[in-house]
Amino acid sequence: MSKTLDPYLNNPPYLQLAIDIPNLPVVRNFLSKIVNIKSPRLLLELGTPLIKNEGLRNLVPVFRQYFPDQYLIADLKTLDVGEIEVKIAEKTGVNACVVSGLAPKPTIKGFIKACRDFGLDAWIDSLGSDYENLKSKIKTLEQGPDVIIVHRGIDEEIAGAQSSWNTITKFKSFSKALIAVAGGLSLENISDAKNHGVDIFIIGRAIYQSENPQSTINQFLSTIM
Amino acid sequence: MSKTLDPYLNNPPYLQLAIDIPNLPVVRNFLSKIVNIKSPRLLLELGTPLIKNEGLRNLVPVFRQYFPDQYLIADLKTLDVGEIEVKIAEKTGVNACVVSGLAPKPTIKGFIKACRDFGLDAWIDSLGSDYENLKSKIKTLEQGPDVIIVHRGIDEEIAGAQSSWNTITKFKSFSKALIAVAGGLSLENISDAKNHGVDIFIIGRAIYQSENPQSTINQFLSTIM
Repeated sequence: MSKTLDPYLNNPPYLQLAIDIPNLPVVRNFLSKIVNIKSPRLLLELGTPLIKNEGLRNLVPVFRQYFPDQYLIADLKTLDVGEIEVKIAEKTGVNACVVSGLAPKPTIKGFIKACRDFGLDAWIDSLGSDYENLKSKIKTLEQGPDVIIVHRGIDEEIAGAQSSWNTITKFKSFSKALIAVAGGLSLENISDAKNHGVDIFIIGRAIYQSENPQSTINQFLSTIM
Repeated sequence: MSKTLDPYLNNPPYLQLAIDIPNLPVVRNFLSKIVNIKSPRLLLELGTPLIKNEGLRNLVPVFRQYFPDQYLIADLKTLDVGEIEVKIAEKTGVNACVVSGLAPKPTIKGFIKACRDFGLDAWIDSLGSDYENLKSKIKTLEQGPDVIIVHRGIDEEIAGAQSSWNTITKFKSFSKALIAVAGGLSLENISDAKNHGVDIFIIGRAIYQSENPQSTINQFLSTIM
């Protein structure tokens, strides 16, 4: 872990690239195209479908080959056996794991404790959660998460759900966690997001489906600063 | 799919072996110990942590090597991008996929539709769901699930949550889905479960941690009949 450029996210803002390409050869090709970016502000996320198709044990070594020092997040969206899933991820050498805010509270508790024990950051994803319900889960935890993801799922996005900036302010009022936002961010609305206190900007397809992903990443990096 | 012994679960009851060993070499060794079981009543589940560690693309061929004709379930516990996750699983050759009942409704809808399009069974897992909430999600779906899993998560089990047989009767009152039960089943209480209308009995550690898993499976198979 000591090798990672900014292992504990001490210096926001960050740009997080969510890699949801489900296939390892395509991922490898994509990583080779962006390998020259060395910014400590770039976080790399192994997306849930990618993890389920290829497995963390096979994926992380490929990511480390191209980005030995970058902060890596395993988007596990854990719902059960929190401790077991963190153990699996830790062995592979990621920096952080994501639990679903929809998980039963004992799962979230065990997940965060395991992250602390292993020196990983614990992230919690609000996808599909009712705000009040998630707030009461987080407030009653002895050990809170390091990052809260305010998330609009891709399926919800397509179905037209509203994004809500004020949720960020509400989470910040009771939690010291950094706030990440996923879903619907673009070069056009990112300064709006920044004004609402976002610490981590999560972008997926807008980067990996662009013609020149390295230049798109640099554009995003300069926009968030 | 045509090779599978009972591809559409037309003849319950079934015993489902949930394989949550996270490591492929250990899984391989375990499968070799039970390879002589040929019952069409045995369903094999690729557990969530195992999928996340090894990847479906690497796991399913190993399962098919030992059990070419058995019904295989990918316990994806999908929360987002339902269609993408089903596509990934379908390519590997499983018979069924599991969506989380906690997922937003557009995800569940897309997931079930994709399963129908690909000829897979769509399962929904109640882990962590409020009954009334899940009921209203399922009742308002045009295409309902083929199987509902009444699930007590391992973390909840440890924390002492109550199992509730009457949930089975309630689901059967409005859905034609088969009912699977996971969590807390043993040779001691399985006839109790049977009397409450369970169609699929999901067992994990009680089988794969037993000294002679093949004989334990046979004991369970004779108990559910």
